[in-house]
Amino acid sequence: MSSRFPNVRVLTPEIAGWGFFLCTRKDVRHGRGGDLFVALSLQDGTGTVQGRIFNDAARLGEEFDAGDFVKVQGRTDSHNGRMQLVVENIRRVNPDQDKAQGFREEDCVLCAPRPVDEMWREMDELILHVRDPFVRELLRSIATQHAEKLRTWPAALTVHHAYRSGFLEHILSVARSALMLGAAYGANQDLLTAGALLHDIGKLEELEYDRSTRYTREGNLVGHVALGAMMIRAAIAAIPEFPEVTRTQIEHLILSHHGHKEFGAPVEPMTIEAMILSAADDLDAKMNQVKQALTEDSDGEFTAYQSRLGRVLWRG
Amino acid sequence: MSSRFPNVRVLTPEIAGWGFFLCTRKDVRHGRGGDLFVALSLQDGTGTVQGRIFNDAARLGEEFDAGDFVKVQGRTDSHNGRMQLVVENIRRVNPDQDKAQGFREEDCVLCAPRPVDEMWREMDELILHVRDPFVRELLRSIATQHAEKLRTWPAALTVHHAYRSGFLEHILSVARSALMLGAAYGANQDLLTAGALLHDIGKLEELEYDRSTRYTREGNLVGHVALGAMMIRAAIAAIPEFPEVTRTQIEHLILSHHGHKEFGAPVEPMTIEAMILSAADDLDAKMNQVKQALTEDSDGEFTAYQSRLGRVLWRG
Amino acid sequence: MSSRFPNVRVLTPEIAGWGFFLCTRKDVRHGRGGDLFVALSLQDGTGTVQGRIFNDAARLGEEFDAGDFVKVQGRTDSHNGRMQLVVENIRRVNPDQDKAQGFREEDCVLCAPRPVDEMWREMDELILHVRDPFVRELLRSIATQHAEKLRTWPAALTVHHAYRSGFLEHILSVARSALMLGAAYGANQDLLTAGALLHDIGKLEELEYDRSTRYTREGNLVGHVALGAMMIRAAIAAIPEFPEVTRTQIEHLILSHHGHKEFGAPVEPMTIEAMILSAADDLDAKMNQVKQALTEDSDGEFTAYQSRLGRVLWRG
Amino acid sequence: MSSRFPNVRVLTPEIAGWGFFLCTRKDVRHGRGGDLFVALSLQDGTGTVQGRIFNDAARLGEEFDAGDFVKVQGRTDSHNGRMQLVVENIRRVNPDQDKAQGFREEDCVLCAPRPVDEMWREMDELILHVRDPFVRELLRSIATQHAEKLRTWPAALTVHHAYRSGFLEHILSVARSALMLGAAYGANQDLLTAGALLHDIGKLEELEYDRSTRYTREGNLVGHVALGAMMIRAAIAAIPEFPEVTRTQIEHLILSHHGHKEFGAPVEPMTIEAMILSAADDLDAKMNQVKQALTEDSDGEFTAYQSRLGRVLWRG
Amino acid sequence: MSSRFPNVRVLTPEIAGWGFFLCTRKDVRHGRGGDLFVALSLQDGTGTVQGRIFNDAARLGEEFDAGDFVKVQGRTDSHNGRMQLVVENIRRVNPDQDKAQGFREEDCVLCAPRPVDEMWREMDELILHVRDPFVRELLRSIATQHAEKLRTWPAALTVHHAYRSGFLEHILSVARSALMLGAAYGANQDLLTAGALLHDIGKLEELEYDRSTRYTREGNLVGHVALGAMMIRAAIAAIPEFPEVTRTQIEHLILSHHGHKEFGAPVEPMTIEAMILSAADDLDAKMNQVKQALTEDSDGEFTAYQSRLGRVLWRG
Amino acid sequence: MSSRFPNVRVLTPEIAGWGFFLCTRKDVRHGRGGDLFVALSLQDGTGTVQGRIFNDAARLGEEFDAGDFVKVQGRTDSHNGRMQLVVENIRRVNPDQDKAQGFREEDCVLCAPRPVDEMWREMDELILHVRDPFVRELLRSIATQHAEKLRTWPAALTVHHAYRSGFLEHILSVARSALMLGAAYGANQDLLTAGALLHDIGKLEELEYDRSTRYTREGNLVGHVALGAMMIRAAIAAIPEFPEVTRTQIEHLILSHHGHKEFGAPVEPMTIEAMILSAADDLDAKMNQVKQALTEDSDGEFTAYQSRLGRVLWRG
Repeated sequence: MSSRFPNVRVLTPEIAGWGFFLCTRKDVRHGRGGDLFVALSLQDGTGTVQGRIFNDAARLGEEFDAGDFVKVQGRTDSHNGRMQLVVENIRRVNPDQDKAQGFREEDCVLCAPRPVDEMWREMDELILHVRDPFVRELLRSIATQHAEKLRTWPAALTVHHAYRSGFLEHILSVARSALMLGAAYGANQDLLTAGALLHDIGKLEELEYDRSTRYTREGNLVGHVALGAMMIRAAIAAIPEFPEVTRTQIEHLILSHHGHKEFGAPVEPMTIEAMILSAADDLDAKMNQVKQALTEDSDGEFTAYQSRLGRVLWRG
Repeated sequence: MSSRFPNVRVLTPEIAGWGFFLCTRKDVRHGRGGDLFVALSLQDGTGTVQGRIFNDAARLGEEFDAGDFVKVQGRTDSHNGRMQLVVENIRRVNPDQDKAQGFREEDCVLCAPRPVDEMWREMDELILHVRDPFVRELLRSIATQHAEKLRTWPAALTVHHAYRSGFLEHILSVARSALMLGAAYGANQDLLTAGALLHDIGKLEELEYDRSTRYTREGNLVGHVALGAMMIRAAIAAIPEFPEVTRTQIEHLILSHHGHKEFGAPVEPMTIEAMILSAADDLDAKMNQVKQALTEDSDGEFTAYQSRLGRVLWRG
Repeated sequence: MSSRFPNVRVLTPEIAGWGFFLCTRKDVRHGRGGDLFVALSLQDGTGTVQGRIFNDAARLGEEFDAGDFVKVQGRTDSHNGRMQLVVENIRRVNPDQDKAQGFREEDCVLCAPRPVDEMWREMDELILHVRDPFVRELLRSIATQHAEKLRTWPAALTVHHAYRSGFLEHILSVARSALMLGAAYGANQDLLTAGALLHDIGKLEELEYDRSTRYTREGNLVGHVALGAMMIRAAIAAIPEFPEVTRTQIEHLILSHHGHKEFGAPVEPMTIEAMILSAADDLDAKMNQVKQALTEDSDGEFTAYQSRLGRVLWRG
Repeated sequence: MSSRFPNVRVLTPEIAGWGFFLCTRKDVRHGRGGDLFVALSLQDGTGTVQGRIFNDAARLGEEFDAGDFVKVQGRTDSHNGRMQLVVENIRRVNPDQDKAQGFREEDCVLCAPRPVDEMWREMDELILHVRDPFVRELLRSIATQHAEKLRTWPAALTVHHAYRSGFLEHILSVARSALMLGAAYGANQDLLTAGALLHDIGKLEELEYDRSTRYTREGNLVGHVALGAMMIRAAIAAIPEFPEVTRTQIEHLILSHHGHKEFGAPVEPMTIEAMILSAADDLDAKMNQVKQALTEDSDGEFTAYQSRLGRVLWRG
Repeated sequence: MSSRFPNVRVLTPEIAGWGFFLCTRKDVRHGRGGDLFVALSLQDGTGTVQGRIFNDAARLGEEFDAGDFVKVQGRTDSHNGRMQLVVENIRRVNPDQDKAQGFREEDCVLCAPRPVDEMWREMDELILHVRDPFVRELLRSIATQHAEKLRTWPAALTVHHAYRSGFLEHILSVARSALMLGAAYGANQDLLTAGALLHDIGKLEELEYDRSTRYTREGNLVGHVALGAMMIRAAIAAIPEFPEVTRTQIEHLILSHHGHKEFGAPVEPMTIEAMILSAADDLDAKMNQVKQALTEDSDGEFTAYQSRLGRVLWRG
Repeated sequence: MSSRFPNVRVLTPEIAGWGFFLCTRKDVRHGRGGDLFVALSLQDGTGTVQGRIFNDAARLGEEFDAGDFVKVQGRTDSHNGRMQLVVENIRRVNPDQDKAQGFREEDCVLCAPRPVDEMWREMDELILHVRDPFVRELLRSIATQHAEKLRTWPAALTVHHAYRSGFLEHILSVARSALMLGAAYGANQDLLTAGALLHDIGKLEELEYDRSTRYTREGNLVGHVALGAMMIRAAIAAIPEFPEVTRTQIEHLILSHHGHKEFGAPVEPMTIEAMILSAADDLDAKMNQVKQALTEDSDGEFTAYQSRLGRVLWRG
């Protein structure tokens, strides 16, 4: 049998092989000449590749559904400048049996590019450097209490960092930017660390995540901005003598981080820390959107129109 | 000595008399002919009247400052269709001595038109009619805990119900409208009662009030929308077995009551109760603004341009 | 033969039966396995149910078109939490012959939930209670002149109350709300009754309705706001000595009822009556949209995204 | 005695003389050194010049009020590049006596630059060239019925053409532009003539004008857009067999001429005639605003910031 | 063999014939009864007609692709009020062989309605009438340098004048309107001629055009507004002693021609010439959009909803 | 004679002394008791202090004008928490004579806090680190050609960095932030250096500066965004073989740096470099505005309402 495919992100054309994927889309279509074929999206931890079943499409198309983990045999191909996988055989994964061949669910779920343990250590470092003992204790208690979700949650449903551990990747990236800017503008770095690590904390209650992501009831009705402020107020209540002014500052950072009322901030940034945090958060979300858009296959110098950004992007 | 003036709201021209007022404005000006005079605003519990010192203006103008309670002697006059009080004598109040003549600070502070005890009983009635025992207990605990502020707070700094007990007047008025509309549309009346009485509860922490009104630090940095949700979450935490879904509904009512993100609602109304509450709140604020605008003296059929509403209003 | 289906609104799964419907959609599709099937929307006076033809789809699909009244035999089914009707036989209605079995066109056309005669009596009551004889006469003349359309017209093409007699349902609902609010705020109740009953009167000329709804030429080019004001001016001209100030007030109510210029109001509300009417109209339209959205079948606690409202709604 | 001043528009510095003016502003002020002086605005039919009373200011300032016609003696001066009139003597006009010296009220009221009779003839010409007999008759009936107001009305309170006969000046200018553009784009010229002459006709009822301009009750509550459509509908009703489609087109032109809903158009232009009319109207209003701004005295190449246009203008 | 079809714009039903077209769309579909057919768009220099292949669809559908020039045999038909061409035979054009029968690529590419030479002469005339020798020389140098593109370029990708020589058609039309309006308002006609002919000149670098239109890299990243100003600055640099103030005026015309910042104008019109140019450009684009919308086949009095304009249009 | 005052930024109350200032405001006013006094604003290189002349105000007020350099003798005072200078003597500076006492014009003009030579060296460093030889040469040529203006220009008229050398301070600050962010997101650092140093380069032609700042003709009519792109295109034209793609990238950075069309960017950021630059520029402008607002004297925890930012700021 042929060898196993490399990761999706580093696939090259004209490879024959096999692999395990999560099938995230399955459409039965007719070709130009009227022939039936099946169009698939196949995902592993590094990305998504388009698949096509041309031979025996009617029968193979019945073997699995969108949402299934599948074992695929075929070869890669370059079509209009996009990579595609021409499927020769496909079936549902049988977890018990396929484990022997190296199948692991987590390898087929889109994932942040950095290892989660490495990111966790970076977060620990950041907390260690906080000088204000109350702020440090708050961050530690949050990290301990929500360790499981903090390690696995995505940062959003679809917009940016919408994959396993994307939440952690996002808050660390915001922290790095905010601390650099904070140093340049003489901001309170402890507050910026807290703001960066906590600004989206409400998303741990706003979203529900296993393989896919959904809004919770509270996520819809209360929203992560207010949920975050409430979680922090509760966590602070458990820390004796936490100064009220510091609590207010951290709540302000969370409540104002969307920057403008029309983006869902009930209050707008009124301190340099809040302005820096909001700028760092907005930029990081955009950078991640751009990165996603640029990795989508395309022929030309420019990406397709990005409706959220309202423009095309240049590949450079 | 002449007799005491009636309340400002019912002043008529050509009365000579005396009275106690809060002086809220004092400007030294020159008239057309170059003569010095003093222009005043004099307030009692029912409204504000313009005053003018023409005789002995330089000396009398030194006797008091804006912000002082004053004893005034003079006569009323109609000037360009507006009532004015031509001051013949004026001095600072001497509280100890003037008490004997009936001076009371509270009579000189702008006040809601209905007696506060009557409004308090109406609120008690509303709470009594709530059928859900958890919601009823929540409302009782809030009423007990914040009784003092609930009886005296204004509803806002300047926009609407900006006077003593205006808060209570506003939430009762919203409750009446919301319950009528709720009956028509089959809404949950318990939730509407809670939403109406609690939607602005964060203003008790957002504002500081004695004779005048100011924003607190938390008022600016956290804002009454989030403060209200947090106060309610804390109050609910003290009620054993309060259902989580009810808590989420009440928090949603508070967080969405501004109706649109651009007006500071971090989430927008997603239930018929939240839509009704938001409509009732918006209408009550407008009705109060119209009432204020119509009571300002003016010659014509139409009021001056109301910049918040972006239009003139018709006196009918 | 099996028994007749109950109304769509009260359909339950696993019933075999037959019924008359208006087919409002017919799509020929291919299933996952490539098989042809027909997807239908079947309407009676109480709602719409999705239909599917799986057996003999090619032949049965030729028997009728979207827009036809059809006689359907089949059984109900629950599919992903939505009711659907699996069609075993279907043909065009033959009006003469099917009348015997109880076919009536009006039973297959979406209709306001309240009987029209009952609504008409409510409107009569409202007019009877108007104290101003000129306003009362105006309302009577309008009711008489447009009786036919007032009883049958929908309130809109698609947004809200978009079904037979939806117009009457809407104006009565607005009247009830407006009069309650008017009582609370001391508004002129005669004007509010007139405003509520007449605010959309231009829609009788803006729309053309038999089984479906279309814009007329004047509807597009003049619009119901201005058409309404013109119809009222003409009706008033026929009432001797109708006071000019009352005419202006009623025209203002009609012209300002959309509340803001960007929503098509050439003037914005300048009286408390106009503000109340505009709030009541807006709320009633939203309540109806919510009601429609909540009755659409769905799995979860939340509806699909409502693009007009810009949010999802909670089923509670 | 010195000779009479030339018109304000053609005043030059260093002239001694006398003249009749309408005083539109009178402010008593203190100079840098503390001396009292009086600042005036003096208007004749061609413009406004600033006046200053330095000598005997206290006494002369008592001789008249803003709103009075005055007789002024003094000399012109150039101050910071602006013309000003240094007043040596000033008194109220005595109409009977001053008539002998050539005083006429109408010479002191700001006026369109073209003679009204010449403009009237141009309008007659335009009507004469209308080929559709119904449209021609409509225009004639309107011209006859409203001749007095059409000759004297301003086009607005303050924004553009805000002077005697400004209305006529504006509609003729719009007509010229619209007909030129209509010829270029193959539009219906009869409709464009009607649209240009009638689009603002509601202003004859929206505004009240003698020496100054005010909104009427209907002007505020109904507005000139709807008033215009109603006036035209009434005028058309008096013309037997006026085609309904033509009426709808003319009403559409009036109702849509503000171009966008947010500018108060209840419907937006849906025909090339309506688009051309709206463009011609908007441009003419802007051209007149620019002309006013450029004639205001100023030192530099650029005007002061024009808040309505949101920019400065270049003098070229 | 049957005769050749007339131009698409003047096609009538029930003609049998043959013709050369550019096929711009090819969709393989299933009919109501499940039969396969091919839906085409066929373009010549005057417009686009819909085609249908019903007979032998599978085989004929393989004979060509969208983007090919094709030779078509069939007959015309009226379907739901729209013209369609029922194709009986179709094949790719063989340029060498079909030239003999009159095939010319340029006849199959959508084209401005006026002959390009006639338009060129009109532009020459306009330049000849410019009195300022510097402006005239600038226009001549631009016309000479860019003659090829000026004769063939479209004015946009999709919005308006999106066909061969549409650029030239558009700038001439803007020039005619602007000069007429300029005469009425006393504008500098030389500047208006320059502004009209040069305002979109950056599009010659923004777009790439042969048979179809694409954005260039500079088109996306710099945009035609700034590109135009830069091209003009370069062209002016080659003209000795070109007055700086004239250069600034022309650059202002180009940079401000979109009228408002939100439409991409880095500066807003500050001169009457810039205001006139912007109005003429906006109107011409709209007039062309309307013309396109009205020529699309449709049943009713009104066009389909025009999403760019946000409304339907009336056919009159 | 008393000693010289320290710098305005470090003034403390109750100092008697003398100093040289630029008087930027002079108002003659009347106090509460009617007495004349003069209110001044007095500026040195570090800030502005309010002055008051109470004694001999009429005479001393004649000794100088706003815009003059003045020599002041008096004592400092704290009034409502703000520093003020009670002037006992004041006269115009006599440059020749006062030089002996240490008068230098540049010491009385508001100035960036960092020494200009130090900033210049930092810019040199940045340029030195650019690896792309073309970009480096471009930056060097710009620095050389505009050295004089680069060292002295403010960054804006009023909004931010509106003082001598504010331009240099701003671009360096943007460069630091952009390079840090660029390192974090893997951006092209050469392009970011170029973008940061050049993005506002058009302001050297947009503004005219000696002691005060004005817009130039080109500044108003062309604007600094387009002017900057043109200046760079010209500078690049002088560098042989400058790659076209690099030129386009730099022009894109300049043209898009305002981030959104409504803020005057003719194109919006389409690369990560452009997004980073725009974020860094926006943040730096806001940080400077906050800094200015926080240094304005005030009593409370919060600043006055900042109309540009639409909120109050917290002093922390």
